[in-house]
Amino acid sequence: MKPYEVVDIQKVYSGPIFDLVKQTITLPNGKEAYRDVIIHNGAAVIIPVTDEKKLVLVRQYRNGSNSMLLEFPAGKLDHNEDPKECALRELAEETGYHASGIKQLFKVYPVAAYCSEQITVFLAEGLKLGTPNLDEDEFVETEEYSLSDLLQMIDDGDIQDMKTIMGVLYYARIA
Amino acid sequence: MKPYEVVDIQKVYSGPIFDLVKQTITLPNGKEAYRDVIIHNGAAVIIPVTDEKKLVLVRQYRNGSNSMLLEFPAGKLDHNEDPKECALRELAEETGYHASGIKQLFKVYPVAAYCSEQITVFLAEGLKLGTPNLDEDEFVETEEYSLSDLLQMIDDGDIQDMKTIMGVLYYARIA
Repeated sequence: MKPYEVVDIQKVYSGPIFDLVKQTITLPNGKEAYRDVIIHNGAAVIIPVTDEKKLVLVRQYRNGSNSMLLEFPAGKLDHNEDPKECALRELAEETGYHASGIKQLFKVYPVAAYCSEQITVFLAEGLKLGTPNLDEDEFVETEEYSLSDLLQMIDDGDIQDMKTIMGVLYYARIA
Repeated sequence: MKPYEVVDIQKVYSGPIFDLVKQTITLPNGKEAYRDVIIHNGAAVIIPVTDEKKLVLVRQYRNGSNSMLLEFPAGKLDHNEDPKECALRELAEETGYHASGIKQLFKVYPVAAYCSEQITVFLAEGLKLGTPNLDEDEFVETEEYSLSDLLQMIDDGDIQDMKTIMGVLYYARIA
C-alpha cells in the first residue's frame, strides 16, 4: 500500500460552488486517516494592467469574509472551461475590459490543506474598455490604482484578499 | 433591510477542521440569496528567516492538492488561541526552530468567496534550533532555501501553495 493513496471517497454534500467529501487516505506508517476535503472545479484570476500602467480591480461583497473586499477580477471555471477563457470572460463581465495580450504566470492552491481549488494566475495587457455584463444578482464596482498605491494599501491592511496581495507583489517584481 | 445582511444560517455539516453552513443573505436589490460557506476558525503562517538569511519551509502531503507541497510553517488556530502563539507553536512543532523575534505583517482571506478562514502572517527572526515535536500521524520534512532560490522556484512552478508564494514575494520586498 503506497503512502497518501486515497482508498475511499464518501460524498457528504453537493452544492453549486463546491462539494464536500470524506476521504480515507493511507499514511506512511501504514495507518489510515479520514479527511474532510472540499472539491472545487478550479478558478482563474487576472492581473489587468492598462496602457497607463494602472491595475484594474473590483470591489464586491464576499460571503467568507462577510465584508466588501478589493480583488483582481476572478471567477470559477465553468465545466470544462479553459482557465484563460475564464480569466478573459470574468475580466470582461466584471470590468468591461477586453485584453489583447494575456500571459499565464503560474497555478496556486489557496488552501491546499483541505480544498482542491487550484487558481491559474494571468497577466493581461492591451486593455480596451467595453461594457460590463454582470449577472442580475452580481454587484461589482471597478477601481483602478497605481502599483505604488496598491503596495501602500497592502502595508496599511486595506487589501485582504490573498490572491490579490500575491498578484500585486508579483507584478511589483516584473513592472 | 440592509444589503448583505446574514438573515439565516443553517448548519449542513460539522467536522474537525471546518463546518459547512448555508447562509441566507440580503442583496442590494432587496432579494435574498443562499450561499454555502465554510466556517473555519482561522490560521497562522510564519516566514522564518535564519541568521544566515535562509528561509525555513516544510514539505508535506496535502489532501486538497493530493500532492506533496513546499510551504511556510502554518496551522489552524486552536480554540481561543492567539495567532502569534499559534505561529510560534507550529514553527517549533514542525521544524524545531524557536524564534526570539516575531512581527505580525497582515491578515488575509485565502478564499473569501466561500470560506471564513483568515490567515495572520508573521515574520520570524532570531531562530534557535531545538527538536521538532510532530504528532504521531504527521509527516513533515524541513527544507531551507535562499530568497533567490525561492524566487526561481516560483517562476519554475515548483512552489504551488499560495500563502508561501505571497510570503516569498513579500519578503523579497523587505529583504
